[in-house]
Amino acid sequence: MLNPAQRERLQIVLVSPRNPLNIGAAARAMANFGFTRLTVVAPYEKHWREAQSAVGAPELLLNAKQSATLAEALADCTLAIGTGTLTYRRAEQAVVALPDLTQAVTAALESAPESKLESALATGPRVALVFGPEKHGLTREDLSYCHLLAEIPTDAHQPSMNLGQAVAVCLYELAVRTSTPGAKKPAAASGTSTAQSGDLDLLAGLIDQVMKLARYAPASMRAASQHDLRLVLRRLALGPRDVRRMMGFFRRVLYRLER
Amino acid sequence: MLNPAQRERLQIVLVSPRNPLNIGAAARAMANFGFTRLTVVAPYEKHWREAQSAVGAPELLLNAKQSATLAEALADCTLAIGTGTLTYRRAEQAVVALPDLTQAVTAALESAPESKLESALATGPRVALVFGPEKHGLTREDLSYCHLLAEIPTDAHQPSMNLGQAVAVCLYELAVRTSTPGAKKPAAASGTSTAQSGDLDLLAGLIDQVMKLARYAPASMRAASQHDLRLVLRRLALGPRDVRRMMGFFRRVLYRLER
Repeated sequence: MLNPAQRERLQIVLVSPRNPLNIGAAARAMANFGFTRLTVVAPYEKHWREAQSAVGAPELLLNAKQSATLAEALADCTLAIGTGTLTYRRAEQAVVALPDLTQAVTAALESAPESKLESALATGPRVALVFGPEKHGLTREDLSYCHLLAEIPTDAHQPSMNLGQAVAVCLYELAVRTSTPGAKKPAAASGTSTAQSGDLDLLAGLIDQVMKLARYAPASMRAASQHDLRLVLRRLALGPRDVRRMMGFFRRVLYRLER
Repeated sequence: MLNPAQRERLQIVLVSPRNPLNIGAAARAMANFGFTRLTVVAPYEKHWREAQSAVGAPELLLNAKQSATLAEALADCTLAIGTGTLTYRRAEQAVVALPDLTQAVTAALESAPESKLESALATGPRVALVFGPEKHGLTREDLSYCHLLAEIPTDAHQPSMNLGQAVAVCLYELAVRTSTPGAKKPAAASGTSTAQSGDLDLLAGLIDQVMKLARYAPASMRAASQHDLRLVLRRLALGPRDVRRMMGFFRRVLYRLER
């Protein structure tokens, strides 16, 4: 059961939602369960405007943020949680069963910044709960930006949930479930990452440049190794200080390679 | 977490649903969480046909039962559970918080018939989960046919849930929650009713006739006393044998009054 301050630190991210009714339903479920921060990634512009101008659209829909890419939407998040089933995919990150989601989110939001200085500078932990488009859900690439996959335990004969209903079920879970001490902690939450997603992307970009200059892998493999790199960096549970050190190190390597 | 045999004994009842999309969404949530028995009460005929003929409508929608009244839909049920919030209503029956619903349903489905003879004759416990129309939810009269009200813990600022989402959240709860020994048992489940709803209605009808013949109350009060009678009979947690005895007793009284 997230308290209001914790709900304020959780944003719902809808990736390319197509149906205005689904966008409206997702927003309504947020209002039902006391969540207010919505971000929409690359929506179909016309449908998005239609959803926003619908009669009775909750205020949070008008105040929603819009971003061009998922990476941009997650930039200030310290924990990104994708949602879906495992029926048609093999997870490349830790999986948390939906009934254990409250535990995972609470653990992440309780993690304090590393030092007092950082506490003043940093914005603190932020969690994103990410939902894919209606047709196919989150892609493998979308999920490479997520630390965790929250598995919605649907029936194998009809695994795919309606978007608005998936949002409702996940937020209901966060709104009511008391996180019990006995609950299973997902692997990734044992050492919680406190680095922001955007900083991990900068670090990944730097490492990618180093790989390229060092001719670590052929160009044809770059996309695949960028994908793996995103996942690895999220698995390492880095803090902001770790990221800064690694950035310094790889910048130095890059400088040497360029000379 | 209801097992398949228990899911088979639970029917979802939609009272006068208006929007074909909501009917479809409710059916989809049932398929997502492994429930198959759907009953629709007094639907808007045109919209109901539209929902059934929608592309990709799950089979359970085509096999749905249709009934004219809620009483008829619940006739063979031993436990009827209404759904809603307490924001705009005062419950006249025991309330179970949605996170404790699995406990209540499991307790009802575990209750065995009273004797071996009855075990052979009776159809055993049956539970109904009842959802009201989109605009206002279940009426006070609808709820008088329910033993329990399952309270969906929504935000006071936006208490009213979309129908399809309410069904999804309730069935998710029944599909995943392990009923723990420590969970609060709702008052009504402590002595579980094993009488069928239709038999309670017959008994209520008989008592009503007795009241009328005995000039117990003025005609203007009859609707109110029928309402209260429905609620009281559900609160008593009667078994089939109790109902038969009471029927015999009131038939006798009626016979004497009529002479």
